Order: sequence, then C-alpha cells, then structure tokens
Amino acid sequence: METAELELRVRYAETDQMRVAHHASYFIWFEAARTEFIRARGRSYAEVEEAGWLLVVVEAHCRYRRPARYDDVLVIRTHLRSLGPSTLSFGYEIVRRADGERLAEGYTVHAAVDRAGRARRIPDEIAGFLGPVDAAAPADRREGRSGRAPGEREYT
Amino acid sequence: METAELELRVRYAETDQMRVAHHASYFIWFEAARTEFIRARGRSYAEVEEAGWLLVVVEAHCRYRRPARYDDVLVIRTHLRSLGPSTLSFGYEIVRRADGERLAEGYTVHAAVDRAGRARRIPDEIAGFLGPVDAAAPADRREGRSGRAPGEREYT
Amino acid sequence: METAELELRVRYAETDQMRVAHHASYFIWFEAARTEFIRARGRSYAEVEEAGWLLVVVEAHCRYRRPARYDDVLVIRTHLRSLGPSTLSFGYEIVRRADGERLAEGYTVHAAVDRAGRARRIPDEIAGFLGPVDAAAPADRREGRSGRAPGEREYT
Amino acid sequence: METAELELRVRYAETDQMRVAHHASYFIWFEAARTEFIRARGRSYAEVEEAGWLLVVVEAHCRYRRPARYDDVLVIRTHLRSLGPSTLSFGYEIVRRADGERLAEGYTVHAAVDRAGRARRIPDEIAGFLGPVDAAAPADRREGRSGRAPGEREYT
Repeated sequence: METAELELRVRYAETDQMRVAHHASYFIWFEAARTEFIRARGRSYAEVEEAGWLLVVVEAHCRYRRPARYDDVLVIRTHLRSLGPSTLSFGYEIVRRADGERLAEGYTVHAAVDRAGRARRIPDEIAGFLGPVDAAAPADRREGRSGRAPGEREYT
Repeated sequence: METAELELRVRYAETDQMRVAHHASYFIWFEAARTEFIRARGRSYAEVEEAGWLLVVVEAHCRYRRPARYDDVLVIRTHLRSLGPSTLSFGYEIVRRADGERLAEGYTVHAAVDRAGRARRIPDEIAGFLGPVDAAAPADRREGRSGRAPGEREYT
Repeated sequence: METAELELRVRYAETDQMRVAHHASYFIWFEAARTEFIRARGRSYAEVEEAGWLLVVVEAHCRYRRPARYDDVLVIRTHLRSLGPSTLSFGYEIVRRADGERLAEGYTVHAAVDRAGRARRIPDEIAGFLGPVDAAAPADRREGRSGRAPGEREYT
Repeated sequence: METAELELRVRYAETDQMRVAHHASYFIWFEAARTEFIRARGRSYAEVEEAGWLLVVVEAHCRYRRPARYDDVLVIRTHLRSLGPSTLSFGYEIVRRADGERLAEGYTVHAAVDRAGRARRIPDEIAGFLGPVDAAAPADRREGRSGRAPGEREYT
C-alpha cells in the first residue's frame, strides 16, 4: 500500500480558454490526492491539523505532458518521495482513466510547522504513519531536490 | 526594461484555512504577471492567441519562503529566463510591498503550440519581442532546467 | 429519475481563512452537479457543446445555511426547476453526508447560445432530454425568477 | 462617498472553455470589491476579523448580462444595499472600463458572527462605519430579500 489513488473528474470551472484544464488546477488535485494518501494510512489530514501541526508547502513542481480536458476522469497516484528530518515530499502522477495516458507528474515538498507557526523537525508521529518512502520508485521519483531544513520561520 | 512588475492584493478567496494564501494561487499570480511582462514589450498575450499561437505551460515550479496573507499587496517581478528553439521560460519573484520581504520565487516553461495543437519552434515573431533573456539574472534564474524540445504533441 | 446526485469531498484549496468552504466554491459544485444531472439523462454536457450549443449562466443564486468544511463529503442534488422558451433553470440542494444536514440551496438560470454567440430558443433536442420539470418540487424550487428571454446578445 | 470602486483585470485562469470569465469568478470579484468598500470607509476587513467578527455570506446572487473576457479591465462598484439588525447586504455592478458596458450586477447578504461562531446582531461599531445605506439607489438595489435574522447558528 505504498501508492494511493484518487479519481476525479475535470470540472468545467477548471478549464480555461485554451479548452484544457488550467495548469494551477493540478496543484489542487495533488493536494486532494495527498489527503487520500494520508487517509489510506489510517489518518486524516484534518486530524494532523487538530493535533497542532501543519504540513506547509515549501516547494511545488509540475511537468505537464498532455492536456486534461473537461469531463475527463483522472487518476492521481501519490507516493512518499522523501522523508527527511525537517522536510518530506510527495510525488504524483496523473493519468487519464480512459486510455491510461500519462498527463503530468509532479511533487510537493512540505515542512512541519507547529501552532506557533515555526518550522520544526517532522514529528515522529507523522513520520511513523506516512512512511516508509516508496523504495520501488525510480530515483528521480524518490529524491527530493530540496533536502535542506527550512529553518525556523514564521510560516502561517 | 528587462523585468516587468505587477502589483496585486491577496484576495480573501485566495486564502485557505491555514490563514495564508493557498499555494496554487501563486501560479495564477505568475500568469497574471507574465501577461504584464508581455504587455510591457508592447504586445498582449491576447494578440498572441489571436495570431494563432498558444504558449502552453509545460512545467511550473514555485519555492515558498514566507506566507502571503489576505490583503497583503504583493509585487511580482517577471523576467525572461531562457529562450530556446522550442521552449521559453519565465522566472518570477514575489515580494511583499510593505516590507520588501521576498515571499516566493518560481518559474514556468512554455512551448509554442499552433492552431492544430502541435508544438512548434518558437516563432521568430514571438522570440523577437520577448527577448533578450535577462543576462543580469544569476545563473540559477537564467537557466531553464527543461531545455529539451517537447516534441510534436497534441497539447490543446 | 428526476433528481441527480453528486457526491464530492471539500478540498483544502476550497477553504478560506474562516476555516469553511469559500462561498464561490458552491457555484463550482453546482456546475459539477448539473454535469451529472445531464449525464444521468444519458447525455454529456461536452456533447451539447460539440453539437454547437452553450448553456450559458445568466443568473446564479445561493443561500448558505451552515458551513461546509474541509474534508466533508457533500451530496449535491440537482433538479430541473423551470424550462421556458428561452431559459431553463436548475435547482440545487447541498447536504452533508455524515449527518444529512442541509447546508445550502441555490439555483442557476441558463440561456441557450449558438455557435455565433447568440441567445436562441432552447432547442427541442435539449428540452427533450432535460425535461420534464420536477413537479414534485415545492413551488419555490420550481419557479424561476427570471422567465424573460435574454434577447439576442453576444454571450460568448 | 457612497459607492466604492475597484478596478481589476480578468485573469487567464478565470476564463473557461467558453472563452469567457467563469461565472463563479464574479463572486470573488464582488468580495474583493467589498474589501475596497470597507477600506474606503477607513477600515479594513482584516481589522474587523481581528476584532473578533466575521461577516459571513448567507446569500449571494449574480445576474450576468454580457461576458467578461480575458484581459478586460472591469470596474466593480459596491454600495451598501441594506443594514438590518442581524443582516446587511452589499450590491454590486460590474462594467467594462473600455466601453462602459454593464456586464453584471449582484448582491451578497451577510450575518455578523462572533468568535464562538454564533450569529449576533450587527455590532454598532460595524453598522456605524459601513452605513448609511445608499438611498440614491433604486429600490431594487436597496432592498434585501433576506431580512430575517439567521438565528444563532454555528457558522464557522
């Protein structure tokens, strides 16, 4: 159970006048997909926040290969890409359900921020249920490009 | 006139329950900022589309340093980061006007797509008014990480 | 089969700093729900557009009763509220699946616009598969407040 | 100074595949416009929230007359439409700056909610700086359709 999947249908509001899904929508889909990844580990991200932690996005990337269109059903696959002392990273792939075509892939890097808005080490509790990192993924899927600690900053 | 600036105010709808601007909003701001970059060159992106070209996004990246909040006035600076035969790239920096704090930086990579939805060489006409690449930018701002041609694909 | 249902989960990006779903999101959900209403009639709205017709929104309304929150599963029920010569209207109710609480209701009024961007009579073909109007609905759900023809205008 | 104006430019991300601004965007523009209305009264809505009050949206309406398009500059005029014991309402008009064409009008109705998430009487402090109601407006612009108290409910 190292990869979680979310299916969703492209909404009309998500299209733009190029007649394809707008590129910012993909980051919203990635976010919905990692909510399901966490749920598949038996938690909910809502609980993480209730416990006083935020997983703030410190980096986001997407590579667009083919356009998603209105009413397409997409499958978004999420895996844990890296888990360091102060950041963790999720990787994503989006394929179109109808033909299996890969449309995009991307990643997000997150820092753990406490109630006071300070970046902290990833709590063991969170590392425990998220891990392990998906070792079956190719290196470029596994390695974060942003391993450094974000330092203690005001994030929220 | 190598950098163009756009000022905008963070909208309430752009916040999320972390009480900061949602990370996907930054890509929408980048897009609004490159519209102004093109206008500062004496064109409008609307005209580019009317002439039969789309500059589709093939890659997008953002590094978030500090949160933008509701009602903050942001300054978004755009520069031409690379201009290759088949892709071009814009770089962006977002600072908060009130204190000059740098909040985020990012880039987008674009391919030129014709009316038939095929990726083509960047037309001379577009390369001409967009360029030159901002040579004053540090190397990491200037160099695209995605120089390869996207090939001829259905993009739209 | 006079009412169609769509279930969806509130996305993090749809919340705002009040920690509830932003009020504009409801109109996007209504739109996704009427896509399913049309599909439940055996068509797709994508086909309607391919046939050269747009059902443009000329009026939209929502009454918010209780907040929807991140990760809530919502059920959106759509019915045909009115079907006149030149406009038709959908009504919507949103309930939270977990407790059946009604969170909001609303409606949208649409005009049929042809390829030239002109408002026309609702084509028989569209009226045929959308109808009949949901006669079981209470009057306030059934009656449009905007029965007048929108005239022939440039809409798109 | 009974009407406040906000100018904004339609973003590419706000368009949809009809090649016009998506209808949900108008509610986001209304919201940005009432932020400016409040600022024009010498306050900021951020301060209202810091003082422990939320002006939650309990009803929203828009009538769309002509489409707004990518890169159009819009002028959004906001006025105070009604101010009752437990709800207040803003009215909006959107015109295209280039030709003065009226594109849409709408309103929102708001309840005042305290820190505990309960709807309360509109505080005198808020009523004081928002008012008076725009008496020069035609009756249909002045009168709320939702004058009843929302009761004490969990709103946030």
